[in-house]
Amino acid sequence: MKKSIILAIGNELVEGIIIDTNSKYISKKLLEIGYKTVAINTLPDDLEILVEEIRDSLKKADLLITTGGLGPTEDDLTREAISKTVGKELIFNEKLYNSILKKVKEFHSEIPKNIEKQAWVINGARIIENPVGTAPGQILQIGEKQIIILPGPPVEMKPIFEESLKFLEKFEKIYQKRIKTLGIPEAILVEKYKDIIYKYKDVNVATLASHISGVELRFTGKKEKVDEIVKLLKEKLSDHIYALDNETIEEVVFKKLEGKSVSFAESCTGGLISAKFVSIPGISKVFKGAIVAYSNKVKEKVLNVNKNTIQKYGAVSKECVMEMAKEVSYFLDTDYAVAVSGIAGPTGGTKEKPVGTVWICAYKRENDYYLVEKFFFRGNREIIREKSALNAFNLLRRILS
Amino acid sequence: MKKSIILAIGNELVEGIIIDTNSKYISKKLLEIGYKTVAINTLPDDLEILVEEIRDSLKKADLLITTGGLGPTEDDLTREAISKTVGKELIFNEKLYNSILKKVKEFHSEIPKNIEKQAWVINGARIIENPVGTAPGQILQIGEKQIIILPGPPVEMKPIFEESLKFLEKFEKIYQKRIKTLGIPEAILVEKYKDIIYKYKDVNVATLASHISGVELRFTGKKEKVDEIVKLLKEKLSDHIYALDNETIEEVVFKKLEGKSVSFAESCTGGLISAKFVSIPGISKVFKGAIVAYSNKVKEKVLNVNKNTIQKYGAVSKECVMEMAKEVSYFLDTDYAVAVSGIAGPTGGTKEKPVGTVWICAYKRENDYYLVEKFFFRGNREIIREKSALNAFNLLRRILS
Repeated sequence: MKKSIILAIGNELVEGIIIDTNSKYISKKLLEIGYKTVAINTLPDDLEILVEEIRDSLKKADLLITTGGLGPTEDDLTREAISKTVGKELIFNEKLYNSILKKVKEFHSEIPKNIEKQAWVINGARIIENPVGTAPGQILQIGEKQIIILPGPPVEMKPIFEESLKFLEKFEKIYQKRIKTLGIPEAILVEKYKDIIYKYKDVNVATLASHISGVELRFTGKKEKVDEIVKLLKEKLSDHIYALDNETIEEVVFKKLEGKSVSFAESCTGGLISAKFVSIPGISKVFKGAIVAYSNKVKEKVLNVNKNTIQKYGAVSKECVMEMAKEVSYFLDTDYAVAVSGIAGPTGGTKEKPVGTVWICAYKRENDYYLVEKFFFRGNREIIREKSALNAFNLLRRILS
Repeated sequence: MKKSIILAIGNELVEGIIIDTNSKYISKKLLEIGYKTVAINTLPDDLEILVEEIRDSLKKADLLITTGGLGPTEDDLTREAISKTVGKELIFNEKLYNSILKKVKEFHSEIPKNIEKQAWVINGARIIENPVGTAPGQILQIGEKQIIILPGPPVEMKPIFEESLKFLEKFEKIYQKRIKTLGIPEAILVEKYKDIIYKYKDVNVATLASHISGVELRFTGKKEKVDEIVKLLKEKLSDHIYALDNETIEEVVFKKLEGKSVSFAESCTGGLISAKFVSIPGISKVFKGAIVAYSNKVKEKVLNVNKNTIQKYGAVSKECVMEMAKEVSYFLDTDYAVAVSGIAGPTGGTKEKPVGTVWICAYKRENDYYLVEKFFFRGNREIIREKSALNAFNLLRRILS
């Protein structure tokens, strides 16, 4: 397999001001076309360090990708560093300069100092236009090796990187399928299904366990065999498998809801379920709205939860989430509804209901059907709320099956 | 300044399965005690590559920090690689082994294979207990240099790293203050306030512009001077400065609301404002609830928005958000309210109201006061919704001042 190295360049990255999300995106795409990323190096805007790292990386990898350091300021040194390392001069490109100037006039009230820096191209490099910002990408062939130079902002990096892939040699694609599961520990999952999993000797199996989103199984190998094993597991594990590959559970639920409508009643999640759902374009086809009933008064007044229910069982109870789910489905007039009430912490826990106790109810109005479950989630406030949202979608998915 | 290098180790990191968030956290903390991170290298679980990178890094840096590769599986090779590079053998620590076994029995139904691997300690290293998981941290002194070995999961890494800082030499602290602004472009900000900014020659000024969260100014230098410049700018820029240092705008608003209550009426943000607010522990003191009125029917039925208003002006209008804000404050009985309605795209835009058009209204019930503004946000659906939420909090902040 061909080797790639990614250099993520910028003081703001090494100083911990922002997180490099580009490299994850790039290495994932590269793997699909047969390049294995052997290192991702985050580096400061420092000419000496950059030259040394670029030189080292070109020794180790077939493909070098840099992101960042293409801005107009004196700090931005990626072009200079690559030019110096490979011994090819920077050449001012007038046509490029004019197109940059045109964009600048559109975006800004005044022209930034030194903007002409972005029109300098390494001798022999192919220019890849930036459809979003001003700094173009560049691709350089050095003997048998290639260098792809990309800007740092993800919105600019992505389209240029996609375009640059056209100029890369493609290798055998790896066939991979992923299964995402919830509510079943890794050890039990593997133990229970090892007969299936290990029957396919040529299929490589990797597991990835996450505190929040459950255990993911990745199968790599011949398409036919991988598809077989995934099909078998889907049948056996339908309550636990909530999505395949890059799908999110929100998207799975959205598709299953086609032609129907849904609403949410949220307490401890505080709008998180709705916010995740609304991130899907076109969601208005199925989503009508939600009531974030954070205080008990709102639960009683807006959602009509019986005062006695809360007094007798508490707001974090089976009875309360069942009333919340049914009421919101009638109030917002939807076919389905999900309600969540729990203790996200750090305070508010008791011996009977410790922090992490969450009740979730999915409701189908047509046949007055409730699916209600109690969860104990470990983790901090953020993790408990994330897990609650994920499992709320999973309960909804199950009554939609 | 002392130099540090961080090695983030794990196949799942280089393959783009998960993002390394540890290094940002670590480098930020290190900067505060006088260590400048000169490189963050993400590496696969590969003994040869690890040995080479550890050797190189020890040449370049005073402090080397590794995260990941301390699990019990054969893939986990960080301990072995460091041991090999520095020429110090791994020694089995029986006491550590017993404490690991005890934890394992608590967490799991069965004992993972090879768990004894985690009880191997590099000769001469100090062990730092893992309060969350099983793999302990280790600190090693090699001549004048130090190596800190940390597990990969952030929930385990953080407490061990904090503890390990006790054993590091501290250097002069850098005094830094940050100002976060909204709604003012970088060029104008610097142009308009350069008299103040450049009057303090000894104070270093850096700007960081983000597509979503606006322009951040960072001032580094003598405490007295930095505090002066921040105070001056706060007075001049009060509408635009929404937070200082690590504060988020949610936290600023939460503090200002003390003794008062608030509710939200959300359309295009779809629960995002509420979800962000509820991430703050103890928020129930001020937050009562929200109505996510995604469909117009919910706006009319639940929020009592006049049908004529929507017909005449549309749901994305000044009139509509004003009604939404007032209604939700009465419906959920709160002192303040914020309402948002906009077009997040990718579809739904018109010539008069293109994608990115968002109306926001902050409302104070006591004196029937409205602060209402129209925004045009550039970016995709996610960015438009994020910007809407941020500016919703900022309008609320302004009527709370």
